[in-house]
Amino acid sequence: MKIDPWKSIEVKDYSKTMKEFGIDPIATLYKNLPLKSILFSRNVIFGHKDFGKIIDAIKNKEPFVMMTGLMPSGKFHLGHKIVADIMVYFQKMGAECYIAVADIESNLTRNTNREESKKLAIDQYLINYIALGLKSKKTKFYFQSEGSIEYNNLSKYVAKRTTFNELKSIYGGLSPEKIISAFTQVADILHPQLKENGGPKPVVVPVGVDQLPHINLTRDIASRMKSEYNFILPSATFNKMLPGLKKGKMSSSDSTSYIALTDSPEEAANKIKKYAFSGGRSTIKEHREKGGNPDIDVSYKYLEMLFEPDDKKLKKIYEDYRSGALLTGELKQILIEKVQKFLKDHQKKRQKAKKQVDKFIVKTSPKKR
Amino acid sequence: MKIDPWKSIEVKDYSKTMKEFGIDPIATLYKNLPLKSILFSRNVIFGHKDFGKIIDAIKNKEPFVMMTGLMPSGKFHLGHKIVADIMVYFQKMGAECYIAVADIESNLTRNTNREESKKLAIDQYLINYIALGLKSKKTKFYFQSEGSIEYNNLSKYVAKRTTFNELKSIYGGLSPEKIISAFTQVADILHPQLKENGGPKPVVVPVGVDQLPHINLTRDIASRMKSEYNFILPSATFNKMLPGLKKGKMSSSDSTSYIALTDSPEEAANKIKKYAFSGGRSTIKEHREKGGNPDIDVSYKYLEMLFEPDDKKLKKIYEDYRSGALLTGELKQILIEKVQKFLKDHQKKRQKAKKQVDKFIVKTSPKKR
Repeated sequence: MKIDPWKSIEVKDYSKTMKEFGIDPIATLYKNLPLKSILFSRNVIFGHKDFGKIIDAIKNKEPFVMMTGLMPSGKFHLGHKIVADIMVYFQKMGAECYIAVADIESNLTRNTNREESKKLAIDQYLINYIALGLKSKKTKFYFQSEGSIEYNNLSKYVAKRTTFNELKSIYGGLSPEKIISAFTQVADILHPQLKENGGPKPVVVPVGVDQLPHINLTRDIASRMKSEYNFILPSATFNKMLPGLKKGKMSSSDSTSYIALTDSPEEAANKIKKYAFSGGRSTIKEHREKGGNPDIDVSYKYLEMLFEPDDKKLKKIYEDYRSGALLTGELKQILIEKVQKFLKDHQKKRQKAKKQVDKFIVKTSPKKR
Repeated sequence: MKIDPWKSIEVKDYSKTMKEFGIDPIATLYKNLPLKSILFSRNVIFGHKDFGKIIDAIKNKEPFVMMTGLMPSGKFHLGHKIVADIMVYFQKMGAECYIAVADIESNLTRNTNREESKKLAIDQYLINYIALGLKSKKTKFYFQSEGSIEYNNLSKYVAKRTTFNELKSIYGGLSPEKIISAFTQVADILHPQLKENGGPKPVVVPVGVDQLPHINLTRDIASRMKSEYNFILPSATFNKMLPGLKKGKMSSSDSTSYIALTDSPEEAANKIKKYAFSGGRSTIKEHREKGGNPDIDVSYKYLEMLFEPDDKKLKKIYEDYRSGALLTGELKQILIEKVQKFLKDHQKKRQKAKKQVDKFIVKTSPKKR
């Protein structure tokens, strides 16, 4: 498998990938975390790199940072909710949250307009983050295009600490845009440790496995900058992607592949009924006789990864579907009710969240002579 | 001839180079300039690219910019004085002067320390510029590492407007550092036209011919950014380099190759006596009989390019040296007297200049939350 951080990939076999790329399973460390979460117990977050530092920081109540980025495009959907849940989890554990809007990268690689990116980032991402529980205290939601001088300088100084050959081995085809995007992203991950942000501290970056090369590059560059910056090498957690409704990836250009957090409860129900990939049999008779396959059933996955926190209830759903006692329509109905309740509740919270936006955004100072 | 902007080159035949690289002679445009100067009449500035725009701006009293950069290293010498004289000339013509201290580039390509670069830039460059006549009104002396947000963004957005192949054809061997340095330099030249700096306007960049590829790249990128920034393509003038004392290049690592503006008058006299390359004959007898060659004589060149503003006096020196009436020692003595008078005068002015430094430097605002 070739990992290309410029494309999302679907990972079929996580344990194989982990061995291949030196990602450690997180299960053994999870028991040290004071707050339990299905994100860990159900292996949504399945692996890590150097996460012990974060466990220590949590245990000793020392400052640490959760750093993530977003590339504003399309609607915020349930796939994004997984990331938001991870952010909120780390914030509850005491993390200061840095959230980069990758508008420079978006402009360079997708030619997006800065004002539109900004609007989208706030309306589709920030407001949903807030409604999903992110608090303004200890959150820095910032735009790459509005970073501080030292952040910008850092994104240039990293050029000394890597070579074309290294970049080529990571990204394959190189272009000036990709290089600038990569260096800016390295600065995103490292700048929480700048003096202006309180100096060196552990940083965890929750990512999909497709971002592993970026994490490795950033760690390598950080270690080569020791003499100037004394960075602590950043840690990472690796999470599974929520499958698209029809299996496969969610695509922002195909609204039948996802449920957006701004979809009406009716839309959501219709999408699940019509598109959710099923592990059921072709006929009710066959299903009753042979049973369904929850492991490939998207509705089941959504319950497992997002909507059914109760392990016992989830286990019963799994077994009933396996045995044929639960039909596909019934399984979908369980999900529909959970999703509709969530959406109604969430959309009310979005209204409140809109008023809080300003408390989250890092303001850059106007230029002075 | 291959032009490598990362190395200073000695250009043997200027007219051949001009044809080869599409530089136009400046003589025909010079007559339109209201202020006369030996910089033009003696072909120190010998060529240009798109300088007509600047002539028009001067004629119509419209705003225009003179942009230049400096890489702080070693002592400020007579070679730098040529550039300072050009800057002061354009300022007298009405230019707003932008002077970039290339500390990012210096850090990336020479691994210099930022604080040292800053000290050197002020002590060796800015103070000499001021003593040589640069006025604080309409001067922005800034550090690349302290540029505004929009300047930094510009240095990233340019990545979209060029390709590896183009960069390779200009620079030969590429490296991440060279790319970042090049993009930062493109931003240096273009940012006087940003909205925050008053929007599009003609900009002239006085350079040596070794910088032609940078100028061409910047013009090409500017033309490809029309839709977003509406930049006016920057103009350039091309000037000869002052030869080193011993002929060839001045080198900051060889103090016998230059006269620094902080050399004592005695040091300067000794250097000229001992090292100034002479076009004279081996013996006085032979010199009297056959005459010397002022065209290759460094002392004569210094008088021509810097120290003897009177055309008639210069012509007499030329002819007397040619005929053998003027001996090498006598020619050197003419230069020594001029240089000593200049240095004494200049070093007094440096003392005054030190107090004015703050008026020239662009202050960046501290980061706010």
